[in-house]
Amino acid sequence: MAYFDNVSNIKFEGATSTNPLAYKFYNSEEKIGDKTMEEHLKFSVAYWHTFTEDLSDPFGVGTAIRPWDKHTDPMDKAKARVEAAFELFEKLNVPYFAFHDVDIAPEGSSLKESFDNQDTIVAMIKDYMKDSKVKLLWNTVNNFSHPRFVQGAASSNNADVFAYSAAKVKKGLEVGKELGAENYVFWGGREGYESLLNTDMKLELDNLGRFFHMANDYAKEIGFDAQFLIEPKPKEPTTHQYDYDVATSHAFLQNYGLEDIFKFNIEANHATLAGHTFEHEIHYARINNMLGSLDANQGHPHLGWDTDEFPSDLYTTTLAMYEVLKNGGLGRGGLNFDSKVRRTSFEPEDLFKAHIVGMDSYALGLRVAHQMLEDKVLENIISDRYSSYTEGIGKEIVEGKTDFKQLSDYALGLSDIQNKSGQLEVIKGILNQYLVRAAAN
Amino acid sequence: MAYFDNVSNIKFEGATSTNPLAYKFYNSEEKIGDKTMEEHLKFSVAYWHTFTEDLSDPFGVGTAIRPWDKHTDPMDKAKARVEAAFELFEKLNVPYFAFHDVDIAPEGSSLKESFDNQDTIVAMIKDYMKDSKVKLLWNTVNNFSHPRFVQGAASSNNADVFAYSAAKVKKGLEVGKELGAENYVFWGGREGYESLLNTDMKLELDNLGRFFHMANDYAKEIGFDAQFLIEPKPKEPTTHQYDYDVATSHAFLQNYGLEDIFKFNIEANHATLAGHTFEHEIHYARINNMLGSLDANQGHPHLGWDTDEFPSDLYTTTLAMYEVLKNGGLGRGGLNFDSKVRRTSFEPEDLFKAHIVGMDSYALGLRVAHQMLEDKVLENIISDRYSSYTEGIGKEIVEGKTDFKQLSDYALGLSDIQNKSGQLEVIKGILNQYLVRAAAN
Amino acid sequence: MAYFDNVSNIKFEGATSTNPLAYKFYNSEEKIGDKTMEEHLKFSVAYWHTFTEDLSDPFGVGTAIRPWDKHTDPMDKAKARVEAAFELFEKLNVPYFAFHDVDIAPEGSSLKESFDNQDTIVAMIKDYMKDSKVKLLWNTVNNFSHPRFVQGAASSNNADVFAYSAAKVKKGLEVGKELGAENYVFWGGREGYESLLNTDMKLELDNLGRFFHMANDYAKEIGFDAQFLIEPKPKEPTTHQYDYDVATSHAFLQNYGLEDIFKFNIEANHATLAGHTFEHEIHYARINNMLGSLDANQGHPHLGWDTDEFPSDLYTTTLAMYEVLKNGGLGRGGLNFDSKVRRTSFEPEDLFKAHIVGMDSYALGLRVAHQMLEDKVLENIISDRYSSYTEGIGKEIVEGKTDFKQLSDYALGLSDIQNKSGQLEVIKGILNQYLVRAAAN
Amino acid sequence: MAYFDNVSNIKFEGATSTNPLAYKFYNSEEKIGDKTMEEHLKFSVAYWHTFTEDLSDPFGVGTAIRPWDKHTDPMDKAKARVEAAFELFEKLNVPYFAFHDVDIAPEGSSLKESFDNQDTIVAMIKDYMKDSKVKLLWNTVNNFSHPRFVQGAASSNNADVFAYSAAKVKKGLEVGKELGAENYVFWGGREGYESLLNTDMKLELDNLGRFFHMANDYAKEIGFDAQFLIEPKPKEPTTHQYDYDVATSHAFLQNYGLEDIFKFNIEANHATLAGHTFEHEIHYARINNMLGSLDANQGHPHLGWDTDEFPSDLYTTTLAMYEVLKNGGLGRGGLNFDSKVRRTSFEPEDLFKAHIVGMDSYALGLRVAHQMLEDKVLENIISDRYSSYTEGIGKEIVEGKTDFKQLSDYALGLSDIQNKSGQLEVIKGILNQYLVRAAAN
Repeated sequence: MAYFDNVSNIKFEGATSTNPLAYKFYNSEEKIGDKTMEEHLKFSVAYWHTFTEDLSDPFGVGTAIRPWDKHTDPMDKAKARVEAAFELFEKLNVPYFAFHDVDIAPEGSSLKESFDNQDTIVAMIKDYMKDSKVKLLWNTVNNFSHPRFVQGAASSNNADVFAYSAAKVKKGLEVGKELGAENYVFWGGREGYESLLNTDMKLELDNLGRFFHMANDYAKEIGFDAQFLIEPKPKEPTTHQYDYDVATSHAFLQNYGLEDIFKFNIEANHATLAGHTFEHEIHYARINNMLGSLDANQGHPHLGWDTDEFPSDLYTTTLAMYEVLKNGGLGRGGLNFDSKVRRTSFEPEDLFKAHIVGMDSYALGLRVAHQMLEDKVLENIISDRYSSYTEGIGKEIVEGKTDFKQLSDYALGLSDIQNKSGQLEVIKGILNQYLVRAAAN
Repeated sequence: MAYFDNVSNIKFEGATSTNPLAYKFYNSEEKIGDKTMEEHLKFSVAYWHTFTEDLSDPFGVGTAIRPWDKHTDPMDKAKARVEAAFELFEKLNVPYFAFHDVDIAPEGSSLKESFDNQDTIVAMIKDYMKDSKVKLLWNTVNNFSHPRFVQGAASSNNADVFAYSAAKVKKGLEVGKELGAENYVFWGGREGYESLLNTDMKLELDNLGRFFHMANDYAKEIGFDAQFLIEPKPKEPTTHQYDYDVATSHAFLQNYGLEDIFKFNIEANHATLAGHTFEHEIHYARINNMLGSLDANQGHPHLGWDTDEFPSDLYTTTLAMYEVLKNGGLGRGGLNFDSKVRRTSFEPEDLFKAHIVGMDSYALGLRVAHQMLEDKVLENIISDRYSSYTEGIGKEIVEGKTDFKQLSDYALGLSDIQNKSGQLEVIKGILNQYLVRAAAN
Repeated sequence: MAYFDNVSNIKFEGATSTNPLAYKFYNSEEKIGDKTMEEHLKFSVAYWHTFTEDLSDPFGVGTAIRPWDKHTDPMDKAKARVEAAFELFEKLNVPYFAFHDVDIAPEGSSLKESFDNQDTIVAMIKDYMKDSKVKLLWNTVNNFSHPRFVQGAASSNNADVFAYSAAKVKKGLEVGKELGAENYVFWGGREGYESLLNTDMKLELDNLGRFFHMANDYAKEIGFDAQFLIEPKPKEPTTHQYDYDVATSHAFLQNYGLEDIFKFNIEANHATLAGHTFEHEIHYARINNMLGSLDANQGHPHLGWDTDEFPSDLYTTTLAMYEVLKNGGLGRGGLNFDSKVRRTSFEPEDLFKAHIVGMDSYALGLRVAHQMLEDKVLENIISDRYSSYTEGIGKEIVEGKTDFKQLSDYALGLSDIQNKSGQLEVIKGILNQYLVRAAAN
Repeated sequence: MAYFDNVSNIKFEGATSTNPLAYKFYNSEEKIGDKTMEEHLKFSVAYWHTFTEDLSDPFGVGTAIRPWDKHTDPMDKAKARVEAAFELFEKLNVPYFAFHDVDIAPEGSSLKESFDNQDTIVAMIKDYMKDSKVKLLWNTVNNFSHPRFVQGAASSNNADVFAYSAAKVKKGLEVGKELGAENYVFWGGREGYESLLNTDMKLELDNLGRFFHMANDYAKEIGFDAQFLIEPKPKEPTTHQYDYDVATSHAFLQNYGLEDIFKFNIEANHATLAGHTFEHEIHYARINNMLGSLDANQGHPHLGWDTDEFPSDLYTTTLAMYEVLKNGGLGRGGLNFDSKVRRTSFEPEDLFKAHIVGMDSYALGLRVAHQMLEDKVLENIISDRYSSYTEGIGKEIVEGKTDFKQLSDYALGLSDIQNKSGQLEVIKGILNQYLVRAAAN
């Protein structure tokens, strides 16, 4: 059965379509450098935003019209979602997907029943994956929506909740192994505090550290070799989330001896909320060899909450892909659309159209970034700008061969210091030229 | 004498240049629709950022290297600036400029001496203008930098300061008339409050209203027919500026019977600081027939102060020009670069390069916006989206022919209400397609 | 039957209680100046946050434990809520309440059925009010939660939705009249835009203006004399709400000839989101004679969404009450707790405790503000600071007896201008002294 | 000679004064617990804000009236400032001060001359310190104001600037030793980037790491045993400062093996700009044993730049002192007023009044925090809230005696999970009660 009959109207078969939205810029097979666009971009559909999201917001109930909502039995609906998911993956030609435990299977009246529900659906997904090229980019568990997690999961003040969370992650690791997940993601939805006034932050952080070590031990024990990823977010739902941004999470990982176990899953909108650009967060992870995977979405610079829009800002997609190319690709990671259609885009076909816009936006970003790297535009600017560290006193500094006394003597002997313009305006103009030239390439 | 000998290296003569920055997209003579690009864009150089700004910031002294700084006598320096200014206007081929009183002439030891200094320089400028196509887009007076304005000008708690401010604006109006200014701008640098605890806001606003009426009376008296413009800004230097944003200023103008006298000079970075997009502010002014002129710059979405960068964001320039074209142009207004080179772009040539980037960015925006309007892309989306107001109950609503009782009866008779997807993702994808296609046009 | 048996443990009978939270500072009968605290503060319970809110958030389902949730039939539950509400009003000794239509009665399968449900519950409430001192501060209708309002109500692009919204407000006005509401509030939940790209802002604003005029006409027709109130909010759920802040709404009201019909219902958290202090918004309304009523809550300065916390910040409550006292009270308005208990405060008793903290916080604010006014602390600072406008040139300015020529002559004759320190640090120190002294009074 | 004759009018001798500002709450000799208030608070005057700040801002020149500005020779002015400083220290009865190199002595035409100027003034200061109880809380060098630092100091792209910076810090360490500084502070004014487009962040961070190691080596070599402190700030003057906040700086220190060498100097306004509360930053440092010293000031929640107001918010001073008391005091650190009088508080006496308000605000905070700790109010709430970790499965978690398998078995055996309300509203009410009771204690 087909859930998305109408999407044939979208004509998203490729750049030759007459429909202006049909992959004007994304072409899975096209080579950009030595890889195809599909290999570069490794797009992933987020199960929650695409198959369980109802488009409710704090001021209104859901608006989404979804064909599978005709089912009332939770397990029937869960199965229908799997069918619809693989139909969408194939029609969109997307190579990956990602999910939380509660996205794919309903929670039962007991933990045991929840696990049983998962087992049923996991078996069904595994079966579908046999006939599909689609792979699991990552899975995770939702330890934040149910009332039991009201005060956190691994950082809850309630030891029973810690244990319950551990049980769910244990199952998540097993599911990840069963489905061959490339990564396993930890987003600590309520791992943070609402107020310091009633919080033992030290205990909560220590427990979080213990939890991650136990998770790693169990993954090793069962032979699940996925890359572990932390997904930073600064606030919402809690006032302060412990994984505030990449640097804060880096401090945490180092503090608890976890820096060799984890990399980062970095989300554009979370960067915005933390007051950073997306490229900043990726860059920080990259130079510390901790870039794992990306959540491709965007927020609005004037809105203070997680809007999870489909990515369309070409500056952001270009600079994100620039970092990815500098990193030699994302390794086991990918570009997961942690993006939801707007509440006003409630029709089933909008799910397709929005993904196409997101994919085209990243395809354009890839083209622009690739060309800039081919031409070494920024690389030449930077190597020229820092050339003083390749010789003389600069070389000695970089090689650790000097000290304050020698540097002071050197400085006292300087007659004048010459700086050169950073030419930032020109560089931004060049970026624009590459951007608008991309379509022609 | 020439102040900018080195700029011949920039090769900014036009799109045929081999220099990648040399007006790739701006061509003053090129027709876009029925006007040349110069007529559409009406670029203006801001005297303060280009000729008096030293690039100091709260954490450091000025870095700017300026040829005219060899002069130590204030009037000699002021004259050198005029010479340099007209050299730059011509080399950049910019048709307008704008200034504050203190930009062009140094303050003297008395108000009288300040006026005399102005007279000398104004005569010199007038002389230069005779041999130039350059016109004065607007002038204004700086009633915020001197310590006497520490607590405001027209909204000062000190009546002497009010009087002093009036004297300066009176002179400004006379200077504007002398030089044929198209507009006269009011930016109330310190017209706002630092804290409500010691502020009589009602008196301050009333005085501001009185001040504007007196300014209008005097302009009429001397036959100065420039368009009066208010320039909104939300905060900085004061905690709350009375001209917070366009809507707030609109409330003020209506409240004091000034709405027919003033239009708005809208600045991109001020919009950002107020939590709005630039296009929002322009749109609001446009639909109220109050769009006067634009200050073309940009801020950084994560920085909370006025960075006054040269504009390079193509989304912003496109959507700004879209509004301008919808407005049928800017009338007597123009695009004034209220933009300063970065502190790190301290060399004289950076002044040229930065303007070129700004002009190219707006030229691209104009091309994209024009094409979108030609194709009626957004206009068709909107006329379709609101079509229910062109017939039936919708038409009666718009024509004021109905009331709550009739509407209630109608609603009680509705069996179902059908909404259609707003398709925002698709629309953003279309905007991207127009953007990257612009270079080819 | 009693829904809140356990609250006797809270011992909220008054300041003599041994329970540290039991109204240490609020005493309804105590005279502050010539009015009792109850007359000054006019507290109101918000039906939605207290009786229908389930404490869900975008990342989790509801956590609230509510005795009336044992009912499964919607009308049974609605009736139980009325019973619980009046029990809570009386135990808290609160004189007012406020509601949206959908708070008190479930929506039916048709508009007619929804109205019938309302009629049933309104009759029940009216009956309860006969035996209670509790009055209806204001009512309103929820024209934003149902999917039909996905693109707005009176500003929807769909004329059917406009009509449907009119029908609901018409009913709301009738209900208000039936229950003797002091005010009628308009909060335009989705009256704004998500993106300018697909919005006809002029048409939407014009329609909003028409809608308000029709509402006013109908209220007059049925003899409903409540004060009409606009409640500004800048963003959320839409990207830009048309009633952004008090000044923006003031512009709108003037623009559409509505400024004599409406006053403002000002919410603390909405002020925060707009970048203003609560006292700024109240002050602006006050000096324009448009202060109607207050929504007493608070947000977190670092969170960009509407948290609707119960008010506890004493600076805010003090400065809000200062404005209220300067206004000669709130007239027909009151202090409505548009506040919800935290998601982590999910027990029924938390509803009581949170209200007590909110009432005590405002009682303290009232005590401090009253004492400051008695001592004319700020008033003397201000009258001294602006004294130059009471004589000489200042007096002429204020009386409109001067012009730019006279002022310029005056300024040219000034030898020096003397400003005096604004002493803001000292004033803040004085405020602190009054604050910590309040408990002793 | 006396610079502040008029301050006798302030009557700041103590709480018995009739002047309402004269230390109502601060009494240096009063015992709070086992220490005097002076020992708890260790106030420090910031040389830059008090003796060299001219109160200019980006929109206006300085307004400060300072008696020592009658001197035109830079060294004469520098000496006059020392005299005035010790007069102010003594009249205010403040036990510490802090400075940058350029605050105390003017820069010469060469680095050598700058050092000589410093030597002259340092000798003078040392001499004054002999007759005074005032000690040097910390010193630092200004490596950000001069144009040579336009692109950073230790993170500059110019190796000569790195060397020059090293020479200045070397001298700073020597000066610190000479004057017995308790701490040495690093605030990296321009150690950050303006744009990633032209930045080699890895090289810059590596150089910063090398610089700090060299500084530590040299301090050891000369036997300067001051505590090294990093002062985090997120942005301004650069777009992204590398020492963004405490957690980011913690990541950096761990990454470069510097975590045992440095502690943090935490500033309230910098916390605000980073989106954190002051108490959050202090708490994070405390639980990681890295709390060094505090910069006592405050920002405005709605302003996006560093306003450096004198502290007056009692919630902030209370919660800061709460953390300090929990830390067992500040060790070698203190409370440095990195605060400037408002631009409108330009008279010399305002320097005194503002400090008094700041000191009183912290004295009140200390009183409140001390009493809350005496009563174990929050400590009891927290120990009760986390009690599940003191026995059973919780104890095993904390002691590291369990794993995912055991936890999963435990969770599968749980019939139900009980959470308790966090009672945040009540806790905030209790905080208010302690706050307003403070004056009476």
